[in-house]
Amino acid sequence: MSVDRLKELRSQVDVVNLKILDLLNQRARLVSDIGHVQAELGTSFYDPQREAEMLTALEQNNNGPFSNETIKALFREIFRASLALEEKEARAKILVQRKSPTDKTIIRLPDGTEIGNEHFTVIAGSCAVVSFEQMDMVGAALAERGVRVMRGMAFKPRTSPYDFQGLGEPGLKIARQVANKYNMYVTSEIMDKSQISMMSDYVDIFWVGARNMQNSPLLKALGQVRQPVILKRGLSATLEEFLYAAEYIVSSGNANVILIERGIRTFERWTRNTLDISAVAILKLESHLPVVVDISHSAGRRDIALPLARVAKASGADGLMVEVHPNPPVAMSDAKQQLSISEFNALMDEIEKVHVTP
Amino acid sequence: MSVDRLKELRSQVDVVNLKILDLLNQRARLVSDIGHVQAELGTSFYDPQREAEMLTALEQNNNGPFSNETIKALFREIFRASLALEEKEARAKILVQRKSPTDKTIIRLPDGTEIGNEHFTVIAGSCAVVSFEQMDMVGAALAERGVRVMRGMAFKPRTSPYDFQGLGEPGLKIARQVANKYNMYVTSEIMDKSQISMMSDYVDIFWVGARNMQNSPLLKALGQVRQPVILKRGLSATLEEFLYAAEYIVSSGNANVILIERGIRTFERWTRNTLDISAVAILKLESHLPVVVDISHSAGRRDIALPLARVAKASGADGLMVEVHPNPPVAMSDAKQQLSISEFNALMDEIEKVHVTP
Amino acid sequence: MSVDRLKELRSQVDVVNLKILDLLNQRARLVSDIGHVQAELGTSFYDPQREAEMLTALEQNNNGPFSNETIKALFREIFRASLALEEKEARAKILVQRKSPTDKTIIRLPDGTEIGNEHFTVIAGSCAVVSFEQMDMVGAALAERGVRVMRGMAFKPRTSPYDFQGLGEPGLKIARQVANKYNMYVTSEIMDKSQISMMSDYVDIFWVGARNMQNSPLLKALGQVRQPVILKRGLSATLEEFLYAAEYIVSSGNANVILIERGIRTFERWTRNTLDISAVAILKLESHLPVVVDISHSAGRRDIALPLARVAKASGADGLMVEVHPNPPVAMSDAKQQLSISEFNALMDEIEKVHVTP
Amino acid sequence: MSVDRLKELRSQVDVVNLKILDLLNQRARLVSDIGHVQAELGTSFYDPQREAEMLTALEQNNNGPFSNETIKALFREIFRASLALEEKEARAKILVQRKSPTDKTIIRLPDGTEIGNEHFTVIAGSCAVVSFEQMDMVGAALAERGVRVMRGMAFKPRTSPYDFQGLGEPGLKIARQVANKYNMYVTSEIMDKSQISMMSDYVDIFWVGARNMQNSPLLKALGQVRQPVILKRGLSATLEEFLYAAEYIVSSGNANVILIERGIRTFERWTRNTLDISAVAILKLESHLPVVVDISHSAGRRDIALPLARVAKASGADGLMVEVHPNPPVAMSDAKQQLSISEFNALMDEIEKVHVTP
Repeated sequence: MSVDRLKELRSQVDVVNLKILDLLNQRARLVSDIGHVQAELGTSFYDPQREAEMLTALEQNNNGPFSNETIKALFREIFRASLALEEKEARAKILVQRKSPTDKTIIRLPDGTEIGNEHFTVIAGSCAVVSFEQMDMVGAALAERGVRVMRGMAFKPRTSPYDFQGLGEPGLKIARQVANKYNMYVTSEIMDKSQISMMSDYVDIFWVGARNMQNSPLLKALGQVRQPVILKRGLSATLEEFLYAAEYIVSSGNANVILIERGIRTFERWTRNTLDISAVAILKLESHLPVVVDISHSAGRRDIALPLARVAKASGADGLMVEVHPNPPVAMSDAKQQLSISEFNALMDEIEKVHVTP
Repeated sequence: MSVDRLKELRSQVDVVNLKILDLLNQRARLVSDIGHVQAELGTSFYDPQREAEMLTALEQNNNGPFSNETIKALFREIFRASLALEEKEARAKILVQRKSPTDKTIIRLPDGTEIGNEHFTVIAGSCAVVSFEQMDMVGAALAERGVRVMRGMAFKPRTSPYDFQGLGEPGLKIARQVANKYNMYVTSEIMDKSQISMMSDYVDIFWVGARNMQNSPLLKALGQVRQPVILKRGLSATLEEFLYAAEYIVSSGNANVILIERGIRTFERWTRNTLDISAVAILKLESHLPVVVDISHSAGRRDIALPLARVAKASGADGLMVEVHPNPPVAMSDAKQQLSISEFNALMDEIEKVHVTP
Repeated sequence: MSVDRLKELRSQVDVVNLKILDLLNQRARLVSDIGHVQAELGTSFYDPQREAEMLTALEQNNNGPFSNETIKALFREIFRASLALEEKEARAKILVQRKSPTDKTIIRLPDGTEIGNEHFTVIAGSCAVVSFEQMDMVGAALAERGVRVMRGMAFKPRTSPYDFQGLGEPGLKIARQVANKYNMYVTSEIMDKSQISMMSDYVDIFWVGARNMQNSPLLKALGQVRQPVILKRGLSATLEEFLYAAEYIVSSGNANVILIERGIRTFERWTRNTLDISAVAILKLESHLPVVVDISHSAGRRDIALPLARVAKASGADGLMVEVHPNPPVAMSDAKQQLSISEFNALMDEIEKVHVTP
Repeated sequence: MSVDRLKELRSQVDVVNLKILDLLNQRARLVSDIGHVQAELGTSFYDPQREAEMLTALEQNNNGPFSNETIKALFREIFRASLALEEKEARAKILVQRKSPTDKTIIRLPDGTEIGNEHFTVIAGSCAVVSFEQMDMVGAALAERGVRVMRGMAFKPRTSPYDFQGLGEPGLKIARQVANKYNMYVTSEIMDKSQISMMSDYVDIFWVGARNMQNSPLLKALGQVRQPVILKRGLSATLEEFLYAAEYIVSSGNANVILIERGIRTFERWTRNTLDISAVAILKLESHLPVVVDISHSAGRRDIALPLARVAKASGADGLMVEVHPNPPVAMSDAKQQLSISEFNALMDEIEKVHVTP
């Protein structure tokens, strides 16, 4: 009987839902009319005092069971939605949200290379550009294995101001030179919107690091560039925050965004961060943007690179990102997690061993 | 005319507002009934699939001007409010929930000593019982400062099976002897319900450690003892889980439960755990049970014991717990966080310096 | 030159290391001799006062750069090691630690079924036993797909004492009956050591839940049973704590332990927990015990079960655990995460699609 | 005889102890030298591979009686102590580190108002500037209670690009006007270094939000301004990262930095964030900079504002920050946590009730 009673109550809720729906839209039409009158009168649409009066009236008429607090919270949302209706309706739908199961953004690089379309993309390179020799050794190794997008980091966000902060523009020059030599594309981290114009001369794909995931002036500015943007998830960003960060870029005009899951900060100390592999599955479900797994920063240790690469490939991600250095123990940053060239080759072999029958 | 028209439109909005208010409360009553049926069926209040179905129905019936996105967002808020109402109703029925601002549980020890009633209680003692001499030195120091409840830990839950696991019953004998000598009460950790009968001969207050906060067979068994029970918050227990753990004891028959906030596990590494001082404020708001702050395990370092003691006193907690050892550097466990006797005296002085005018 | 200087300094450190090594062992021999004399004298080996005197002497002779605090901490470790030498040397090596790359524990069930040896094992079944019909439907579906180990949970650890706590022994009877009918093994959660004897009549593999991962009396008692034990990682347990928890069982006599990674508690709210897939790679590196991935409790949502299953298979885990229910929406617990039978079949198909070439 | 033998053995141990002491310090000096070389080379102090090699060498040279396990455990402690020493030395050199117990930075505002010197400072105001009327009402209320620093936020970092992003420069104008009227100072959030010049016309204290704590271009640029800077701890920043972020500003030339603890992101859901009150104690211990507690964003709920204010005052912090709004329910952001004016007055009363005798 409980089950029958549940059914009955639910159908009553359904009826009430539709009545509320109808009233909300009725209210929206009235508010829209008010907006037109206010426009004629030259007064501002947002009127906190009027809102306060309405809330007081609602409080006085509220007999529960919802508390006054709850009623006011719900109506505040309704007010906010009405306000939004005129101001933002056009852009209010979230652009990064997947609209259908086949909806996907494919990033096309100038020579036709695609990211986000079947092929599992490997993005690789040293943590930071230090010298032409280092970049050249790595570049040759990457090219040999068919890697098309190379890290060329010249600005390094570091915890301490006394740590190596990157070579700056000279580093970008080196990266460009090596990429040209091996017919690859350069991705490089941008830390401030003032760098856009200079970096545009060298960089094929902009890279926004975890610390800048919510740097909205930077994100908005990257909405105006012609290059694709790689956006890393913040250290403790929820997936919702991550998608909204991407929305800042896309809604500003640049649809070519690649999401990188790079591990989140947790209590566990045997890895640098905790790779959130479920995030990949959820991001592919919620968004049409390509998703790449960073197996270097998530683990912070090279001895589990192979299993993590297998996991990334099997997860449905569109690719992985891995740090490679000709001589990891002497790297100026991230020494513990960068792969040597032979380890990188083993990694590429391992990736090829993983097959998921469609 | 525009002004008249504005007035007219606004009064129409007022009418619609009250209709929505009425429907929202009508809906809340239905959902509350559904909650009761669900409780009978033993299913959880939150049902994402049902919500998805309702949202789809609303979308199909929405003719604007609110977009489907907006309508769904507003209804998600309504669902959330309804869920909160159900959960609040469910919690309102639980025994540990405070029913009025003056509702409080006062623990009365045999000689009339009270915990939870104005007086700020200090519970202190060594991390573990190791010898009579050690306990006697600490006991004398505690008694001199008026401490009435002494730690007498004889079973130590340890990460490694090869670490010191406590003296067992001989340790309890020592604790009892020292407590009797100084006219104090003994609190001691219990790790398994099979220990209840033996421990009852020695122990005045049972102590449930963080690792056992959700050991429900133990909690239920402690619902049957005559002694009060100290319950520590689990390392990563939410406050909701903490209160429900206390509910296991209280609903099994023992109303005398003392809650201890002892820090939660987070990413921060300069403290052993993160003392969640807001938890004290919320626990006092939500529950009538006494709340004590463990300043030793939360910080894991003795050099901030004084500010933490001030904070505990000012927070509205009913007391604090601190570890004291005659010679901390040679302690067999928790060496870094135990206070020496002179440090303990400084702590007691500090506590006396904090005044909150009522 | 810096590099040369580094080399030189390091070789000096190497020399000092060996001198310290020599002195530590020299000291250990002396302490061992002292132990024999103390045995003759009938005095206890642990002498805190003597330790305090030695520490004072060290403080007085310490000229830095190590602070007195550090020196005392280091010597406390040396004292502790000396103490351990006689008491624990025999059992001091960690049994669960992998000793060589090929070292692996293979769990053998009575009919020869193996866990931990090449084959990817699927452990499945409903969250809780509710009725024979439910178990029978699930059992038939599992058997058809070759599953050999079935969940048969009769004791449910729940947050609230008012939630469904499981059927108890009658539930075990049902599980046994269904397992026998389909020639499967039953694994069932144990919550208190007092249940061992009764449960042994029904259960092929004991199951220790996340909440009991550090319930050492239970772990020690399970060291004495003949059945294998599945041990789940605690909600916020580090991998180090997880391995030590397994060590409690193994060092008490039962070598047949299976580790389950089931997600850790983090800030992310779109999944119930965060599946720590790197943990699998590290556990396989550090330990010889089989490792299984729980794709149900980690995600808490069924819509990402397929990618998580692919990930589990590719990670190098020895198997996965998944919850299956004939009608998930009406399940009494974990309704959101249990798979229907058709979803389970899709999952088994998906697992078969993942191949990792050796 | 046994007693004599014991004495003799003990004096031999004493000699060995001192030799070990000497070698440990000798080793520490070498490691310190290595640290200097590593700093020159820009490599990190912690080098697990080098440690692994040393442990292997020790194992190969160990003839007992200590087992290899024990020797490795002891040397791991020695390595850890050496690493701590190096890190402590590195930190001791940074500018924000407190050099002596009386070392403190006092921020002096133009009229002589001081922050960081005995007086407990209250910084207050609305979450965002929306209108002159709102700011004027709040300003009047703050001025009446002696508040000297007012929030005047015109750029709001928001999760969604569709949320209210602040009024921009017109908002700053309003804030300036109100501050002038009531003889107060304005603090306002800066989101990008390009805003510095414009904002300098309106703002007395720059404010860096949690999302920008590691925006190093912004921090460096703020090292060049004449105004003090309020720096909020990032959502998941460790205290070490927080101090290094302040170091970016101070080492770029601006010594007047105020640190704000504003809660960290954890699993707990009954508060918006978890106020880390121990952080205040540790920041006061480690740094000479003023520390302020944000009781609004940490809790995210106004009903525990009073206990949190008491806690902040007792903690040794130099002040607190609280959001105040003439009508919180209609606020465009942070509606749930802002205090009404009467609640703010109650808060000021409560703060006055807390006394800590020096």
